[in-house]
Amino acid sequence: MVTELGYAAGAITVASFLPQVVRAWRTRQTRDLSLASLALLITAGSLWVVYGSLSRDWPVVITNSGMVMLLVLLAGAKARFG
Amino acid sequence: MVTELGYAAGAITVASFLPQVVRAWRTRQTRDLSLASLALLITAGSLWVVYGSLSRDWPVVITNSGMVMLLVLLAGAKARFG
Repeated sequence: MVTELGYAAGAITVASFLPQVVRAWRTRQTRDLSLASLALLITAGSLWVVYGSLSRDWPVVITNSGMVMLLVLLAGAKARFG
Repeated sequence: MVTELGYAAGAITVASFLPQVVRAWRTRQTRDLSLASLALLITAGSLWVVYGSLSRDWPVVITNSGMVMLLVLLAGAKARFG
């Protein structure tokens, strides 16, 4: 039950980055995004993957893996469109 | 040691939203931010607080509490500046 809640929270977390990624690549406008924020979030997400693996918390591992992938796409848009 | 890693990951996660919040309120420009993303992230962060409380995972609880507070500030900027 608790694990299911973790997966639900994780699914929403990953899904929540989708509209932002779509918006950035569709509008090709990323001026209002903070590159520092994106870089820190990628670092943090990677650490959460390690933390989740060590504490065998799979909702945390899966969520942060998905999040890091989407954040890399977002940072790519920022690098490209400025 | 694992818990310390969780707190480190959490501190970076919360810190990572700061530049974005500062940027949004300083430039008063939020057009490139996705309101859908912000709303979903606030929902997800709140669920993570519940999940972390139930599984007694304090790094997860503290991180997501801080994150939700900053996301509310960001959504406030988006609501105000469009």
